[in-house]
Amino acid sequence: MNEATNNQILLTSRPVGTPTSNNFAIITSSIPQPNDNQLLIRTLYLSVDPYMRGRMNNQESYIPPFQLNEVLTGGVIGEVIETKSSDFQVGDVVLGHLGWQNYSVADANQVKKIDADLAPITTALGVLGMPGMTAYFGLLDIGQPQEGETVVISGAAGAVGMLVGQLAKMKGARVVGIAGSDEKIRYLIEELGFDTAINYKTTSNIQLELAKACPNGVDIYFDNVGGTISDAVLSLITQGARIPICGQISLYNSEKQDVGPRIQVQLLRKMATMKGFLVGQYTDRYEEGMTQMAQWIKEGKIKYSENIVEGLENAPKAFLGLFSGDNTGKQLVKVADC
Amino acid sequence: MNEATNNQILLTSRPVGTPTSNNFAIITSSIPQPNDNQLLIRTLYLSVDPYMRGRMNNQESYIPPFQLNEVLTGGVIGEVIETKSSDFQVGDVVLGHLGWQNYSVADANQVKKIDADLAPITTALGVLGMPGMTAYFGLLDIGQPQEGETVVISGAAGAVGMLVGQLAKMKGARVVGIAGSDEKIRYLIEELGFDTAINYKTTSNIQLELAKACPNGVDIYFDNVGGTISDAVLSLITQGARIPICGQISLYNSEKQDVGPRIQVQLLRKMATMKGFLVGQYTDRYEEGMTQMAQWIKEGKIKYSENIVEGLENAPKAFLGLFSGDNTGKQLVKVADC
Repeated sequence: MNEATNNQILLTSRPVGTPTSNNFAIITSSIPQPNDNQLLIRTLYLSVDPYMRGRMNNQESYIPPFQLNEVLTGGVIGEVIETKSSDFQVGDVVLGHLGWQNYSVADANQVKKIDADLAPITTALGVLGMPGMTAYFGLLDIGQPQEGETVVISGAAGAVGMLVGQLAKMKGARVVGIAGSDEKIRYLIEELGFDTAINYKTTSNIQLELAKACPNGVDIYFDNVGGTISDAVLSLITQGARIPICGQISLYNSEKQDVGPRIQVQLLRKMATMKGFLVGQYTDRYEEGMTQMAQWIKEGKIKYSENIVEGLENAPKAFLGLFSGDNTGKQLVKVADC
Repeated sequence: MNEATNNQILLTSRPVGTPTSNNFAIITSSIPQPNDNQLLIRTLYLSVDPYMRGRMNNQESYIPPFQLNEVLTGGVIGEVIETKSSDFQVGDVVLGHLGWQNYSVADANQVKKIDADLAPITTALGVLGMPGMTAYFGLLDIGQPQEGETVVISGAAGAVGMLVGQLAKMKGARVVGIAGSDEKIRYLIEELGFDTAINYKTTSNIQLELAKACPNGVDIYFDNVGGTISDAVLSLITQGARIPICGQISLYNSEKQDVGPRIQVQLLRKMATMKGFLVGQYTDRYEEGMTQMAQWIKEGKIKYSENIVEGLENAPKAFLGLFSGDNTGKQLVKVADC
């Protein structure tokens, strides 16, 4: 890498349907200079996440859309290489919402130091970061699994899903994962201790397989994907079921409004609760979640996996891979060595 | 009425789609005799309710299906005319889940005395009964309206909806009703103090009318009807919206699975909660609800209306009228004078 230049990934056109590499461009820019109370940060890792697809549409949502021909932004781990803030030293490793580029300038209050002694720094974008807190609060606060209940998780081998399943097991639930490859299924069952898992891409009848896997119905459905997989799960919910809606990745690339079975009669009949949530609702409880997850990792109770692609220029490809299910666990892009 | 005979309404065939009078029959039977700890009850009023449609299908649900060629059952107000229980006297007015017939025998612990001094006895099937408690807990416990929020109610002129709107007004919310006739709209606005109301049968664009009526979006949607009306409301929900699902009457007569826009992405984006509920979930809090509602009625803060059809033989017709929106307020059938 040429240390004197700053490569940047831009969104150059808004995807219609499934994004392609043509929606992105890479340009070379100069290294920015920090002002008072700012830091110059060298990017080490960046995070690609399904929610970013929503920001690529020109649509107001809980977070503003990406602007065309500007640098994409997301979760970034970086190293402070120049500091004009007394709160940071050169060499500090930090987490922030920064650009997909080699070098970023950030206000000191925009980033957070990462304690590299606590856990590998990449966990700040995974199990001890946004996906970890999503799993922790989505399952424990909204799902509230009870001993002996059945928890079904779609997108089970993703960054969030794999944690949800392990947390549910810790709470004494029967855990059924849904994922898209035999390797993922094997990983969920053999490595993470899921009771069973279903490969939705190879099953001829997911409804039937789910019914077999959940003889007592589905008490909690942690939904990462939406669409026809969710239709099948929802037909099996029990009275008082809880359905945290964490993601709907199967629908993010839809070009027209998605249509499916109406679910309200089922929610009514089963006195069930469906709740959309964003991890940002829980910021005031992150400390609790991080401390607890770190403890469980240390005790070996929670495992995690990361899928790391090398090179800033491969960030768009890594992002696109989320929609084809390339990743088992948290998808990261390694931009530079620490 | 021939006092020596007991007319009974039976369900003789399961409706396919919209029920018709052909699904019912009336027969004449003898007056049953009470045993120890039982009462002979003369029916005064019976209740017809949308949820009964579900029991006409041969499908397990939270409540078992009606059996063919047996007497239909529902909420009944009656007078004790013979007692073999020391807890009741002849002349007591009672509420129970009893048959659509002139005379019922019931175990003493199956019925509850109604205090005719507290309020007109018919309120035990309406504002102080199941619909009243449904409105009270559905809105206050699940909806949790806050001052200045916007509450939209479908089926707003029905037994539950009209109470929900008044409760929401008491909590300082802006209240928008949706109903199916100009007379209902007038009633909601002029008599009950709704801020506005929309006649879904005459509007050319309910989406547009709703958007105009809810300039700040919809914070609570109390849903009694489902279907396309709900699609329109859901497109307008605000962040953190609450959606108590009380009924889905527009779909109960559907012959095939209902299909509509998928709503999960919207729930996710808005961090909204949709919760199906049945009033039976709140039995341990009925005392609170009844006391409070009775107090508000006494203070003139809650009004109610009843639509009373005369004659046991007209019970099926009154039931069918629920689906064509014949009733403003609680639909009752008067079977005999007190």
